[in-house]
Amino acid sequence: MTSNKAAKVAELFTKTMATTRCFDQNLRKVKVVCCTNGKLLTEFQVGPEHLNQRGTLHGGFIAHLVDAISTYALTANETVETRGVSIDLSISYLNAAREGEHVEVEAITKKLGKKIAFLEVEVRNKTKNQLLAIGRHTKYIGV
Amino acid sequence: MTSNKAAKVAELFTKTMATTRCFDQNLRKVKVVCCTNGKLLTEFQVGPEHLNQRGTLHGGFIAHLVDAISTYALTANETVETRGVSIDLSISYLNAAREGEHVEVEAITKKLGKKIAFLEVEVRNKTKNQLLAIGRHTKYIGV
Amino acid sequence: MTSNKAAKVAELFTKTMATTRCFDQNLRKVKVVCCTNGKLLTEFQVGPEHLNQRGTLHGGFIAHLVDAISTYALTANETVETRGVSIDLSISYLNAAREGEHVEVEAITKKLGKKIAFLEVEVRNKTKNQLLAIGRHTKYIGV
Amino acid sequence: MTSNKAAKVAELFTKTMATTRCFDQNLRKVKVVCCTNGKLLTEFQVGPEHLNQRGTLHGGFIAHLVDAISTYALTANETVETRGVSIDLSISYLNAAREGEHVEVEAITKKLGKKIAFLEVEVRNKTKNQLLAIGRHTKYIGV
Repeated sequence: MTSNKAAKVAELFTKTMATTRCFDQNLRKVKVVCCTNGKLLTEFQVGPEHLNQRGTLHGGFIAHLVDAISTYALTANETVETRGVSIDLSISYLNAAREGEHVEVEAITKKLGKKIAFLEVEVRNKTKNQLLAIGRHTKYIGV
Repeated sequence: MTSNKAAKVAELFTKTMATTRCFDQNLRKVKVVCCTNGKLLTEFQVGPEHLNQRGTLHGGFIAHLVDAISTYALTANETVETRGVSIDLSISYLNAAREGEHVEVEAITKKLGKKIAFLEVEVRNKTKNQLLAIGRHTKYIGV
Repeated sequence: MTSNKAAKVAELFTKTMATTRCFDQNLRKVKVVCCTNGKLLTEFQVGPEHLNQRGTLHGGFIAHLVDAISTYALTANETVETRGVSIDLSISYLNAAREGEHVEVEAITKKLGKKIAFLEVEVRNKTKNQLLAIGRHTKYIGV
Repeated sequence: MTSNKAAKVAELFTKTMATTRCFDQNLRKVKVVCCTNGKLLTEFQVGPEHLNQRGTLHGGFIAHLVDAISTYALTANETVETRGVSIDLSISYLNAAREGEHVEVEAITKKLGKKIAFLEVEVRNKTKNQLLAIGRHTKYIGV
């Protein structure tokens, strides 16, 4: 069930990515598919601005996605009032994606403690039905 | 001593960041300070386009820096003819930086094997003389 | 379906842990629950020899489990003839377990490439139905 | 300069490793070389009980070392009164070591915050003058 909190997070994500002038403007093509309690699923089509010099989806952009989508998934928990502060981020790169392919990014809250939240992310090539990257993001939420 | 190879890498970095339309265009303010065998030191001033919504240097941008600067450090090894393919990337976030502050990013090759290269990166706030982030990047270079 | 290969890996695991004099002797209480193509599920009861000085399951022992169980899961792939060589290992610690509690460790192959294998591990407290740790293990299998 | 605190940590390490019945008994051959404010350098000779089934230093034992030596380095900070709780641990494996070779493990405190401590570890083959592994350990110390 989509909670009120999750619905607000989806709305905020959409509005922010459309208007921000900060680094998250790189995510302007990323659209919310589904936002529920502690989870966020998004999607986009790989454009030229997402590529590395080899012509595949940039590892740095994948890292940006892992960081940002997990942060919104965190705020989609009913009881969370903070975006938290990053402690650790790690990513394994399994496959490459090419321009024009459709990619989905799913972030889930693995544990929501009092001080620390643990989030997990999968980046998948929908076009090829293939896993692109798996990551974890640990945030301090005790503020 | 700056080798011929390292000098070419410094030149390529400068030219690429100034002209690319791919994701690395986010690095257009990042300048080479020093490039030697297997090492690259760069520097930039934090602008509004590097920030998160808290108003500090974006963790996703730091991840992009760790990925990209270490890749150029890899190519700055005399014997390396590839940019490699990312296997694993990990970052610990120690402190925050604000707009206007000067940041330097230093990447070094820890091991250059036949198939795998291990790179280490420090991101430092020069203005505050403070460590911002430490990371590692593992690349497959056996292609 | 349990393949012949997976059945042999389960047998080898059991025999090795019972008789080895090397570091894996620490795993002598760890029993195979289920071994299938590229996956291994094991279980043990926390004993005094698995504890840290706080009296909870040792983080170093959890790391040993992540490393070893994922290695056997790798060998449980039909086509894999090597134990591989570790490239990167990472673990997030979510909760603690106490002496006498039952713990299960599940490792799965996320990607089996020609040169690199990516494995994922969950360590769970069965007694408390709680996630203890999540980890990833990247191995070079191109030898 | 070796502080009183660091001297006590060195003494405690030596006594604990000699007498403990918990998982740290695997470290009984590991000796303190030097302990100063927030840093710990240790050394041991690779024995049969430290090996994997390939006959080289076990990746799980290296992970145990990274976890434990960094924890004692943390307690060697003048102001720290806790061993902390592990949040994230990550290791890159660069080279192998063999039985009889001398290995040193050095852990340093990269940042000591109010809530979170960041530690870095190098595992080196002294016999071959070669880097074996590099790791990071993030601990919660706000308790």
